[in-house]
Amino acid sequence: MEHKPVYYSEYLELERILNSQHPVSFQEGNTPAHDEMLFIVIHQAYELWFKQILFEVQSVIDIMEKPEINDNSSELQFVVHRLQRVSTILMLLVQQIEILDTMTPMDFLDFRDMLRPASGFQSIQFKILEAKLGLAFEQRHGKAYYTSQLTPADVEIIKKVESQPSLVQLLNKWLERMPFFDDKEIWKNFAGGSFWDEYKTIYENSLGEGEKLNAKAFQSVIFGDDSGEYRALSPKASRAALFIILYRGHPMLELPFQFLNTLIQIDNQLGNWRSKHVNMVRRMIGTRTGTGGSTGAGYLQGAMDKHYIYRELSQLHSFLIDRRRLPQLPQKLIEKLGYKFC
Amino acid sequence: MEHKPVYYSEYLELERILNSQHPVSFQEGNTPAHDEMLFIVIHQAYELWFKQILFEVQSVIDIMEKPEINDNSSELQFVVHRLQRVSTILMLLVQQIEILDTMTPMDFLDFRDMLRPASGFQSIQFKILEAKLGLAFEQRHGKAYYTSQLTPADVEIIKKVESQPSLVQLLNKWLERMPFFDDKEIWKNFAGGSFWDEYKTIYENSLGEGEKLNAKAFQSVIFGDDSGEYRALSPKASRAALFIILYRGHPMLELPFQFLNTLIQIDNQLGNWRSKHVNMVRRMIGTRTGTGGSTGAGYLQGAMDKHYIYRELSQLHSFLIDRRRLPQLPQKLIEKLGYKFC
Amino acid sequence: MEHKPVYYSEYLELERILNSQHPVSFQEGNTPAHDEMLFIVIHQAYELWFKQILFEVQSVIDIMEKPEINDNSSELQFVVHRLQRVSTILMLLVQQIEILDTMTPMDFLDFRDMLRPASGFQSIQFKILEAKLGLAFEQRHGKAYYTSQLTPADVEIIKKVESQPSLVQLLNKWLERMPFFDDKEIWKNFAGGSFWDEYKTIYENSLGEGEKLNAKAFQSVIFGDDSGEYRALSPKASRAALFIILYRGHPMLELPFQFLNTLIQIDNQLGNWRSKHVNMVRRMIGTRTGTGGSTGAGYLQGAMDKHYIYRELSQLHSFLIDRRRLPQLPQKLIEKLGYKFC
Amino acid sequence: MEHKPVYYSEYLELERILNSQHPVSFQEGNTPAHDEMLFIVIHQAYELWFKQILFEVQSVIDIMEKPEINDNSSELQFVVHRLQRVSTILMLLVQQIEILDTMTPMDFLDFRDMLRPASGFQSIQFKILEAKLGLAFEQRHGKAYYTSQLTPADVEIIKKVESQPSLVQLLNKWLERMPFFDDKEIWKNFAGGSFWDEYKTIYENSLGEGEKLNAKAFQSVIFGDDSGEYRALSPKASRAALFIILYRGHPMLELPFQFLNTLIQIDNQLGNWRSKHVNMVRRMIGTRTGTGGSTGAGYLQGAMDKHYIYRELSQLHSFLIDRRRLPQLPQKLIEKLGYKFC
Repeated sequence: MEHKPVYYSEYLELERILNSQHPVSFQEGNTPAHDEMLFIVIHQAYELWFKQILFEVQSVIDIMEKPEINDNSSELQFVVHRLQRVSTILMLLVQQIEILDTMTPMDFLDFRDMLRPASGFQSIQFKILEAKLGLAFEQRHGKAYYTSQLTPADVEIIKKVESQPSLVQLLNKWLERMPFFDDKEIWKNFAGGSFWDEYKTIYENSLGEGEKLNAKAFQSVIFGDDSGEYRALSPKASRAALFIILYRGHPMLELPFQFLNTLIQIDNQLGNWRSKHVNMVRRMIGTRTGTGGSTGAGYLQGAMDKHYIYRELSQLHSFLIDRRRLPQLPQKLIEKLGYKFC
Repeated sequence: MEHKPVYYSEYLELERILNSQHPVSFQEGNTPAHDEMLFIVIHQAYELWFKQILFEVQSVIDIMEKPEINDNSSELQFVVHRLQRVSTILMLLVQQIEILDTMTPMDFLDFRDMLRPASGFQSIQFKILEAKLGLAFEQRHGKAYYTSQLTPADVEIIKKVESQPSLVQLLNKWLERMPFFDDKEIWKNFAGGSFWDEYKTIYENSLGEGEKLNAKAFQSVIFGDDSGEYRALSPKASRAALFIILYRGHPMLELPFQFLNTLIQIDNQLGNWRSKHVNMVRRMIGTRTGTGGSTGAGYLQGAMDKHYIYRELSQLHSFLIDRRRLPQLPQKLIEKLGYKFC
Repeated sequence: MEHKPVYYSEYLELERILNSQHPVSFQEGNTPAHDEMLFIVIHQAYELWFKQILFEVQSVIDIMEKPEINDNSSELQFVVHRLQRVSTILMLLVQQIEILDTMTPMDFLDFRDMLRPASGFQSIQFKILEAKLGLAFEQRHGKAYYTSQLTPADVEIIKKVESQPSLVQLLNKWLERMPFFDDKEIWKNFAGGSFWDEYKTIYENSLGEGEKLNAKAFQSVIFGDDSGEYRALSPKASRAALFIILYRGHPMLELPFQFLNTLIQIDNQLGNWRSKHVNMVRRMIGTRTGTGGSTGAGYLQGAMDKHYIYRELSQLHSFLIDRRRLPQLPQKLIEKLGYKFC
Repeated sequence: MEHKPVYYSEYLELERILNSQHPVSFQEGNTPAHDEMLFIVIHQAYELWFKQILFEVQSVIDIMEKPEINDNSSELQFVVHRLQRVSTILMLLVQQIEILDTMTPMDFLDFRDMLRPASGFQSIQFKILEAKLGLAFEQRHGKAYYTSQLTPADVEIIKKVESQPSLVQLLNKWLERMPFFDDKEIWKNFAGGSFWDEYKTIYENSLGEGEKLNAKAFQSVIFGDDSGEYRALSPKASRAALFIILYRGHPMLELPFQFLNTLIQIDNQLGNWRSKHVNMVRRMIGTRTGTGGSTGAGYLQGAMDKHYIYRELSQLHSFLIDRRRLPQLPQKLIEKLGYKFC
């Protein structure tokens, strides 16, 4: 495998990367605002990482889109490993806001007006990420405002992503495919006859006085007595997910559990990011409008409450029962969930 | 200065510290839940740090309570340095939640019921901290719920703290004392006659079309045309704070600026902590009630929006104008704000 | 399951935890040094976390000490999950040093002399942790110094831990037990006859001109042509570990891979901790001796280079070949390494 | 101030930033290695931040190069604030290594050979940063190796930076300019006659039995009985720095203290970065040579021990005496070190 010798700066295309910072305030006729450089660099760093996150998420989608995932290949390992990497990156991005916190509001004012109407809101990559993870247009906070801030070309790009299968949809399909419950052979000698009927009884008995609402929610989510509200996960998929969480101790459920768990983590980190972002904006411009004319903290606050894409997964944690009361699985199933070796 | 030789473990009283973990689930008759140890240790670590934070905040209050702070002593240095330490500690406490995130909801269920009705809500030290920083009882989210969860003795303790001067009150007094504006000698040749009248004009001219509300807010906060809403900082104090933020470049205003800035930081970190806490609770118990019977994430969400104690400081950032338009201070004042040496 | 109502502060034994801070400088006759409280609290927080880490490591040792680990139970999951928790905690402990960095050297001097000869070096829990992880007495930096600083009782405690099976020893045994290579049935149609002979050839061909030493190291580590130096892992165990790293894509090797990987991580974090600790000590007391009379930074520097307990695992990374050249495993083995289900 | 409307993606030149990632393994004829994208992006993020750090450090050098810094302007505030920002960025860069840790050694091998002989060692910006901070060519670890790895053009660039005044040199000049000690008027009624003679006596009395070496070092550093070893700070500058550390409580010394303290912090963070880097390299390629043919961990280890640029500042901490024994400053000096206002 012969190849041309590689030089660090060429390989990283530093010529371009390091010559793409042109503060407006440094242009002739303006007063240079020292902190505008930081403002540009930190946003470029964010966008670089968003590119990486999108690269990882897309590779996960590519795997999940296959007609069938081979459980004995390393495909699911890749899915989990790459989503965990996304989570690690998001942790850094939350931390990275500390650097912007070294810019004072007065320092920001030195160049803020020159940037109008640009706004972090216009980060297409971030919007694409939300769409790929599964945020549907209808679920977005401030829909009208949202489209008004972007160029038509950019709206088009996001619309296209929204029309493709999102990770949450692929997750739903993958969960629905879980074959354990359709196999009558496995369950035929099962004490309760049906696993979920038995589970329901145990769950309801575990509820305290004032927890009637939980029983109702269980019925709706797990059995699908429809509440009419939008749900990304079908009852069938929800049952599979709950089963994975309950019985992750069995080898074959470990990676699926990590998969679900990492999605919840990613959701939470996006939440932490939004919360820290709100605080930063509030500190930076008080209650005034952002550079894009948005009501700044207001929009972010709204997004913070609505944009939990995997809340249906964390909601399942309301339906857990403790290990001591878990229905004992049929021996046949236990074996199937193990490694072949032993 | 002779003294008895000190041994590490005795000095740190490790005998006590390391023998104060007695998981309920480890008691005879119960099934040991491995993760209960972590649950205890992490809460103890939080409480240890709360003790340290209270120690720092109290020392700051002690300084601020003096009839007069000597600007040429190191008193204000201490104030700033110790609050910055509080901020550094809070950053760690936010990070520390990552450790609890290694406990899964199923692991928590193994011992959760045994702890009822205990709840992190019952952390007296955290409530005392909020009170010392300046959260008044009337400003608290869920007042009734709040008192119902604590023992009468603990309610008493917090009430007592609430009756003592809080840091925000002492800040108000300290800001009001600022002598620059009462000294007619300084301002007599000032272009605008009155600094704040001139400032108001410049500020209003800086506002865009749709920003009428900001002009109104400015009038209310800076001049005190009363809006009737609760405010911890008087117009006089708000003017002093705004002045500090605007003219921090002068030596004598640097530490006061750091003081204000650090209070905003502490507020934001408490906000980050609450946000991460909400996420953690949501993940851990879904939408069910917490061990203390609280609606869990619900209460925290409410507190998150209401418990910004220093929001009046960050609100001042709405009233900034950029450096190029700042009124030029009288030469006499500039000198007074400098060091004597030069 | 009826139980006595639990109250937060009683459950956490806060009465004891929060009343175990008695700064020497606060005693009658001394001048209170404000920062001594921080000094005590941060060390207590470290010790609390060390207790938790020891609890996790001991639980891992307990599992690993069983005559046979059932691969189809969740035992290995527990091992990996708990070691990952240790790693998460260590990450926090590294970060925690930032808090001590808010204490200036002058602030430390205010009480430093009163603590003599106490020293962080006397943390028994940290020494026990090193011993449990596998640091043998003979491998310790500064052996004589080491014992001279501790009370005979404490030396006794550590000696006892050192005499018990350490995690690295249990790892060695567990790796040696790996049955794949002894099963002639599996390998009989294998291209190269012996897997390791074929691997060796490929590896040596992958080496560049100046890498003769790597070939020699490979021979010594993997085949055991003895170099005479101390090694915790036998050639048999090293082969198993290398195999796991190379073929982790197969389901049954995923958790073993995480196991090895987490041990390397823990090692690195202990290294980061020591490095940050050296810097802190260097900043705090320059080149003077520590409170315990140690040469401070000197000892830590020495430990930093020598106390990599799992360096033999990371050393295996020198012996990797890229996936394209990996010997193709026999089909029979591939099946055995998969889940039974499919 | 009219201006063309700004759009987020154009302002940040994202067209260029986000299209500068071209993994070699993705080229026709090669097997795409998924993780090469991460490898490129993380290095680009590092280089972006290095650009920002250099921008801040250069702006500090520009201020320090002025014939005279006006203490009553905000110049020193800028110096401190910007260096603190550098320190905050470095903290993130240390953390950022965690992301690269999600790449396994096997994943790296998938593309490692294609990059030869590129190496992180060839980061010109990092070398320039070291030079600007004050690392002289003669003080570098592995000088010959160092030049051999770079293109002549790059060596030229660094040589040029090395020939310009570095921050440590400017610091030395600035410290030497400190006028307090030359003003006989101030000291004429001083108890000890000469401040430093009195200080020396107190310091020597504070030393324990075995600390003779400290007395000798004090003599050499503070009075300049030359030891022959290279020193960036003259005795005069060292005295000024020590004075600042001892008497920082006086208003005029607060910013200078922060200046020195932040330089030590930056040094330590570069140390932490190198240490974490060593661990990462060790884990990634074991004891084999890096992509640039360097002995990898070996070089970094050497640099780690030698490249402490501000060690002379932390060494001063060996010469502190506690506050209770500090010589009382003349009243006249105390006043001069205060604000004019009071």
